[in-house]
Amino acid sequence: MTERIDHTLRDRWTPTTGPLPAHALAWLRRRTGLAEARTPARTPEVPASALSDAARTALAAVVGPGFVRVDRDSRLGRAGGMSYVDLLRRRGEGGLAVPDAVVLPATPEQVADVLRTCAEHDVAVVPFGGGTSVVGGVAALRGDKAAVLALDLARLDRLVSVDPVSRVAVLQAGLPAPEAERLLAPHGLTTGHVPQSYERATIGGFAATRSAGQASSGYGRFEDMVEGVRLATPVGEWRLGAAPASAAGPDLKQLVIGSEGVLGVITEVAVRVRPRPAVERYEGFVVDGFARGTEVVRALAQRRVLADVTRLSDEDETEVTLALAGGWKTAALKAYLRARGIARPCLLVLGWHGATEAEARRRARVVRGAGLVPLGRALGEAWRHGRFNGPRQRDALLDVGVCVETLETATHWSRVAELRSAVRRALVDALGDCVVMCHISHAYETGASLYFTVLAARDAGDPVGQWQVAKAAACEAIGGLGTISHHHAVGTDHAPYLEAEIGGPGVAVLASVKRTLDPTGVLNPGKLIPRGLA
Amino acid sequence: MTERIDHTLRDRWTPTTGPLPAHALAWLRRRTGLAEARTPARTPEVPASALSDAARTALAAVVGPGFVRVDRDSRLGRAGGMSYVDLLRRRGEGGLAVPDAVVLPATPEQVADVLRTCAEHDVAVVPFGGGTSVVGGVAALRGDKAAVLALDLARLDRLVSVDPVSRVAVLQAGLPAPEAERLLAPHGLTTGHVPQSYERATIGGFAATRSAGQASSGYGRFEDMVEGVRLATPVGEWRLGAAPASAAGPDLKQLVIGSEGVLGVITEVAVRVRPRPAVERYEGFVVDGFARGTEVVRALAQRRVLADVTRLSDEDETEVTLALAGGWKTAALKAYLRARGIARPCLLVLGWHGATEAEARRRARVVRGAGLVPLGRALGEAWRHGRFNGPRQRDALLDVGVCVETLETATHWSRVAELRSAVRRALVDALGDCVVMCHISHAYETGASLYFTVLAARDAGDPVGQWQVAKAAACEAIGGLGTISHHHAVGTDHAPYLEAEIGGPGVAVLASVKRTLDPTGVLNPGKLIPRGLA
Repeated sequence: MTERIDHTLRDRWTPTTGPLPAHALAWLRRRTGLAEARTPARTPEVPASALSDAARTALAAVVGPGFVRVDRDSRLGRAGGMSYVDLLRRRGEGGLAVPDAVVLPATPEQVADVLRTCAEHDVAVVPFGGGTSVVGGVAALRGDKAAVLALDLARLDRLVSVDPVSRVAVLQAGLPAPEAERLLAPHGLTTGHVPQSYERATIGGFAATRSAGQASSGYGRFEDMVEGVRLATPVGEWRLGAAPASAAGPDLKQLVIGSEGVLGVITEVAVRVRPRPAVERYEGFVVDGFARGTEVVRALAQRRVLADVTRLSDEDETEVTLALAGGWKTAALKAYLRARGIARPCLLVLGWHGATEAEARRRARVVRGAGLVPLGRALGEAWRHGRFNGPRQRDALLDVGVCVETLETATHWSRVAELRSAVRRALVDALGDCVVMCHISHAYETGASLYFTVLAARDAGDPVGQWQVAKAAACEAIGGLGTISHHHAVGTDHAPYLEAEIGGPGVAVLASVKRTLDPTGVLNPGKLIPRGLA
Repeated sequence: MTERIDHTLRDRWTPTTGPLPAHALAWLRRRTGLAEARTPARTPEVPASALSDAARTALAAVVGPGFVRVDRDSRLGRAGGMSYVDLLRRRGEGGLAVPDAVVLPATPEQVADVLRTCAEHDVAVVPFGGGTSVVGGVAALRGDKAAVLALDLARLDRLVSVDPVSRVAVLQAGLPAPEAERLLAPHGLTTGHVPQSYERATIGGFAATRSAGQASSGYGRFEDMVEGVRLATPVGEWRLGAAPASAAGPDLKQLVIGSEGVLGVITEVAVRVRPRPAVERYEGFVVDGFARGTEVVRALAQRRVLADVTRLSDEDETEVTLALAGGWKTAALKAYLRARGIARPCLLVLGWHGATEAEARRRARVVRGAGLVPLGRALGEAWRHGRFNGPRQRDALLDVGVCVETLETATHWSRVAELRSAVRRALVDALGDCVVMCHISHAYETGASLYFTVLAARDAGDPVGQWQVAKAAACEAIGGLGTISHHHAVGTDHAPYLEAEIGGPGVAVLASVKRTLDPTGVLNPGKLIPRGLA
């Protein structure tokens, strides 16, 4: 167990891809004006731990002395998440907030005891799962407390129970998604939840952030799968989830889901599960222009025949995908598309899951007649193969001086085009020469998500400030047109924009719930609730 | 407009069916030991209005003098909902809580002004839509306030906007469901929301109570349809709903939906709508035993091919349905079923909606091979024809001395049988000779609702107490096995059981949210939040 935790930690920030291929680097230089210089990482500073001896002794009494860690590697391993700014900070740019200690409880009861101990000893608590937040959700901020610790849930890694009749599994919060799937596999079951952070993210993190996976069109968002939650709070334990649906007052589960560790620590989640599909069939298509592609996806969503995975790239993302896929015969592809009247190719990847190949094939037939040009299964499979690679490639990009980040939103169908234009314009205005790509990856009857990827030459003087200006411009552009986050959550980065979305009463309500469950304010300071109201 | 309001009011408590047919009465006497005597209604007492002149003047300044009503008919027309105990009280049994006035605002802004005025004048406010609550949700309780008024939303009856691309319609809260559908029809759209209370219930009421309609298996529960809400509170207006889905913190919409008027008054709801089906195809089937029927419904739910309307009656409900359907050739039916090996017939009504007859027929094919004995479309159509009749028949039943009430719950599939047995046993133990019928009318991948109808001979001495004892026994039986309400809400009747379901922290959270939005506690006292914590 200890070995697994240490391994996870060592492994966590290791880039798993090599340097950027030459053709990709050449393309990037052409498109963004990137300089030739390499920008190697510097080692960040790690201050001495501010945790008092009394607090440390009290925490050790709860979890055992071996599970209160104050060594440099343990603390640095839980210093923030995986946003571009997080990566910059760990490369020595700007100030990195490092927790004073890492505490690893083994049970929901120990989590509750840790919270009570922290409240007594004036210590802030940052719940820590896979550390994949890209919005500052796990930044080690201490607020007005004397110290801050990362509460790492890695030891809460059990499949508590499976109800195969009701198709409900109770999973502990610290389970990384692949491990949860490994435990469900012998039962023939799956959550179907595969966000891009899949390889590292945890069940608790999915619930705490209202995660949506790449197959959300088929399996639903994570909150749609949650049948019950168990939450440790400083004032005691809270369990919810008596039935699949209820009219016994407001759905308080939906208050816990998305609470980002500021109301309590999710320790267990009862999740709706489904039979593992025997077959996953992915196909690539091209459609002429993003507007037409959006109409196709909307029609499938409103007919309620969406593929489980539905991902429509805009013209820019399609161009970049083709440009970077060096092995592809792009000239031949262009001729093929031109012959089919496609002037502005937009990639559409669709994936159908099924119990049999025949079932997946039958489901795939719904797109016939939608005006799509098929590119075959190889392209679909190529997307599937690389589906988790995005985060891994960022270190290689940072090494060569690239500014690379993503952001996302969602809106109703009638505003998709306007929202996409507004965000693109804001980013281009802020960054100058840059590549802004966009895709729809989650579709609903009434609207869709928009996911943006930005590539620019990094400002060597103030790289953090460069991105923060662009991000602020994008967030301002989103306000009034869509949600500030469709599936990345609020964290520190979106907190200033939350009130515009949920209103003054919404912020006041969150603050009052926090005061009720966390009266001394030890839980994840500075996240979710706008500053001054937490 | 005034005429329509007055008409609605006059019409509200008029029984729309005649006396009970002789064969039904004979059957009831046989089954419940019902006496021969008729028990006519007495006129309830209506005390003088306690509304102060100052409050009345201030309210008249907001809504206009014609829309502050203190006459007997107006007040009596908003005195409680439609539970069995409500009906008894309006027949002169026990004490009837009558509002001191009825106020009819015309706009969301006027609603907000009424709330502020009430907070200033120490007047409690009971939001009133169709008045169809069966759990005491609109009881005119004044709590610790000087007076109580019914805030009737009848004048908020506009279709505010339709977005046909996104398929979202903004409907005002006071719209009765049939009127909402009439306004959506020219756009070719429908909510698909048809609870048994359809003929009188309102859009705001659906949202305030987490309503589920008879076609919930196809269209979802009402909360699944809500894209946004507009809420008037004593501290200001609150609007929610920036996107079809969001990770911008907890889903606060789900805190407003089901808030039963204790946190604010819902004034507008943005609802996901769908094309109106050209065809509704209903078919009746019989399956051998409720356990087997439950398995059939579970399989359809877990394969995600449920009919839009899915309703499985247990053995007792099936027997009563056949016994009361005097026109049916039940002997011939019994022989038909016996020949097909059906020993314990359970009715299953399925309804498929579609754009064409062919589509509905194609969808209906999924039940082939499920071991169902078809009874044809006539039986399905008969159910459809009488689908809203339940509430109308109760006056006739009360006239002949019957105790008639319904209650409902939901649980996961693995506990459906246990929950049904526990509730049945509790009711039979409490009531002695009685008929307890049960059906599943809402199915999910992970579980289902259970809806009970009870018929017994009324205790002439203490009819209210008789039912309250039985209801308490049923609620105790539900605790720990399912939810205290799947779609009727909490009101006064389930409030004592809420803490067992949502925990001490859950009740504390609701109370803190209420204090934030309604600091003087004028909103719907005594509902939802258990006494002593509101």
